[in-house]
Amino acid sequence: MQLAIVQTSPVFGKVQENVQAALELMESMPADLYVLPELFNAGYNFIEILEVERVAEQADGLTFQALLAFAQKRICYIAYGFAEKADHLYNSAALIGPSGLVGLYRKVHLFDRENLFFQPGNHGFPVFNLPFGRIGMMICFDWIYPEAARTLAIKGAQLIVHPSNLVLPYCPDAMVTRCLENRIFAATADRVGRENRGSFDLQFIGTSEIVSPSGEILARLDKDTPGIVAVNVDLQQADKKRINHYNDLIIDRKPDQYSR
Amino acid sequence: MQLAIVQTSPVFGKVQENVQAALELMESMPADLYVLPELFNAGYNFIEILEVERVAEQADGLTFQALLAFAQKRICYIAYGFAEKADHLYNSAALIGPSGLVGLYRKVHLFDRENLFFQPGNHGFPVFNLPFGRIGMMICFDWIYPEAARTLAIKGAQLIVHPSNLVLPYCPDAMVTRCLENRIFAATADRVGRENRGSFDLQFIGTSEIVSPSGEILARLDKDTPGIVAVNVDLQQADKKRINHYNDLIIDRKPDQYSR
Repeated sequence: MQLAIVQTSPVFGKVQENVQAALELMESMPADLYVLPELFNAGYNFIEILEVERVAEQADGLTFQALLAFAQKRICYIAYGFAEKADHLYNSAALIGPSGLVGLYRKVHLFDRENLFFQPGNHGFPVFNLPFGRIGMMICFDWIYPEAARTLAIKGAQLIVHPSNLVLPYCPDAMVTRCLENRIFAATADRVGRENRGSFDLQFIGTSEIVSPSGEILARLDKDTPGIVAVNVDLQQADKKRINHYNDLIIDRKPDQYSR
Repeated sequence: MQLAIVQTSPVFGKVQENVQAALELMESMPADLYVLPELFNAGYNFIEILEVERVAEQADGLTFQALLAFAQKRICYIAYGFAEKADHLYNSAALIGPSGLVGLYRKVHLFDRENLFFQPGNHGFPVFNLPFGRIGMMICFDWIYPEAARTLAIKGAQLIVHPSNLVLPYCPDAMVTRCLENRIFAATADRVGRENRGSFDLQFIGTSEIVSPSGEILARLDKDTPGIVAVNVDLQQADKKRINHYNDLIIDRKPDQYSR
């Protein structure tokens, strides 16, 4: 399957423009699955909750409708981050395809001031079956908790889609470790640009990447330019957890020896 | 405290010479705690179990006695790997000090053909209190299981001592992730050299290193030369799990959202 990561430069609060910019990049590159950044339609650096409420959408909102039209026209799947309006506000990611919504993930590990605006997800880390493989979802800061990617691998995910808005420099290299230790693919779609709002000034690091189960960086975008890259991957490779005759990295786990 | 990693080039089966070579490196560099490689006294690439039985020692064996004499003379602590003869054979590490044995760890995740010779440890991952901090122990291939370092961090370790015989290239960079995700120090003492025995030919990668809780590589040795390096570290820095006002990397874990 053809796996694409889309690195955008959202303008704070300009939902329609941001969706349009992502679609233009997607138009330029055929793929079976596109991964977009966290909160790609909204921007990130909120000062007050009213700003979140203004851009938050239900899972079937306008952003969903715009991307669904693309998925139906191109017969493809899209994973993207958005501010979800439900019983609470969530920092969510949706996985959609030609038939509509496949599934939702609500970010479990909220980063920094996200805790002021969003409720942490409490439905765990989901894995969805698509025609070309099993797709697990996590968002940005979940990377620093090894339990997130591990949970997805244990649940059978072959690929982690990982919408992100990275500000710390560590994630791109750490995802190599995540892929190695779980023998799984990962597609981290990050944003670029800067959001300087009042006393909160954030620079995003781009460096979106696709990593293989053997820790190979199959594609990596730069740190400050919007862009898109697609790689042909065989997700079945992630089923091979055995690294030699004696070691299967998942089966050999010893949960009774670990602290929970 | 002064933390030293000792990178040796053991000769297969030559226990006395290997201990002597390590002691000579240790004599050259004062430290409060020395970390030596896995199986540093024995060599690694066993063909048959008789070879393991020949070099295996009880925890109070000759290797222990030689290192204890050094610990008493220099008033220091030493962590080292050895083949342990007990009810079974274990790939073990001992932590010793001027008063004798502080504690033992028996490798939980055996790598490749180690499974033919050793019983996996089943006493979990231990943490010991020394005058300068809380020391957790794991051995070599345990690095690829994030649960090992995580368990040590949850149990309060400030420093992971990590005797190793690395043949895969990934561990030195992965330990940066292990330290970042747990906000913990790690001292990986690896060996160098090659053991070509029959059809089993192993090249060890050296690259012993000390990494800080913020993922900084404080010291790293090269890939093919025996050596020693010491760094002054304040292990209390590992108690700071809070990376901003809202995120404490250990407290914020969500075990009910993880698969075990």
